[in-house]
Amino acid sequence: MNSDNKTESTKERLFTAGAELFAEKGFDSVSVREICKAAGTSMNMIHHYYDNKQGLLDAIVDTFAENVFAFPIRLLSKDVQNEAEFISRLELFFEETLNALIENRLPLLVVQKHQTKSTAMSNLLGKFVQFVAKAQNNGFVQTDIEPELMSGFLMDRLATQVLYAPLIAEYSGYDLIGDPDYRARWVQSNLKLFLYGLVKR
Amino acid sequence: MNSDNKTESTKERLFTAGAELFAEKGFDSVSVREICKAAGTSMNMIHHYYDNKQGLLDAIVDTFAENVFAFPIRLLSKDVQNEAEFISRLELFFEETLNALIENRLPLLVVQKHQTKSTAMSNLLGKFVQFVAKAQNNGFVQTDIEPELMSGFLMDRLATQVLYAPLIAEYSGYDLIGDPDYRARWVQSNLKLFLYGLVKR
Repeated sequence: MNSDNKTESTKERLFTAGAELFAEKGFDSVSVREICKAAGTSMNMIHHYYDNKQGLLDAIVDTFAENVFAFPIRLLSKDVQNEAEFISRLELFFEETLNALIENRLPLLVVQKHQTKSTAMSNLLGKFVQFVAKAQNNGFVQTDIEPELMSGFLMDRLATQVLYAPLIAEYSGYDLIGDPDYRARWVQSNLKLFLYGLVKR
Repeated sequence: MNSDNKTESTKERLFTAGAELFAEKGFDSVSVREICKAAGTSMNMIHHYYDNKQGLLDAIVDTFAENVFAFPIRLLSKDVQNEAEFISRLELFFEETLNALIENRLPLLVVQKHQTKSTAMSNLLGKFVQFVAKAQNNGFVQTDIEPELMSGFLMDRLATQVLYAPLIAEYSGYDLIGDPDYRARWVQSNLKLFLYGLVKR
């Protein structure tokens, strides 16, 4: 039991140290030795758990994709019956994806820094396109928007806001990560804009 | 005349080499020597034109801000008289800012990589907030959106799309930078979404 805990924790420490260093300096500028030192472990351990530095980066990217994209993908895969359900599904998608991005901000920084191709991200955007296209067919989404061309609108907004949250907090005093009331207001304003547009009906 | 041209061109080569290296490796991982070598000049020249490495980075960020934000700031500072003018002003803002970001993609990569505070960017977002708030007062923008909380919506969308354009082109075959027809369709779908929302009226 103790041994298991220790094993888990070494692996986790390598994961976190790798994510911190990749996010700060970039993959190419970080050595295996540096990661192991930051994790307080010997060099053998990274080979044991992740094969090599690339394996560690892959694990960080994969874990991020699983933690952030898996639930939204399931959410957008299920059919909706009417406009109210469509809207509440999008609300849930927006709130839960924001929360997941905030909880996984460090791997998000790594993903952003390395601009890696992400199958999970493509998969999510594909599901989003299908979700919107179906709603167009069912008559409650306007048809003069091409779903393929706006599929990134919400993800861009969420990811950028989470990435820049500390800088925005420093500037404006509004802290998306630490202030739940502000986060709720932010979600409401941005969702209303996305659903109903800027111009008065 | 020839001498002037040569002077200009050395300065520009340093600017471009600095932007390329900062974008690729980050400020801290690039040496003055490396930039000068890439620019095909001696080390004295960077001191001559930009004082030091920080001066070169500042020049890149300032030039980016001037090239990308100055026109949109002027555009949003002028009053609009009615809804039609409001909409056409936003269209112009969206198209021209996209074009400027595409033309300044290399400095955009530098700015993104270093997450520097940008007075010009804050200034633009502030103008945008005022522009939308005035339109709310004039009755053609819906009032249940807080302008401060959605001011980054269009800039996020534009900047992310330009940053990832080569990756998106590789994935999907759609090239925002090289294909003017696609760019026009992309602008139309995203503007319509921003102005009128997803849900059918």
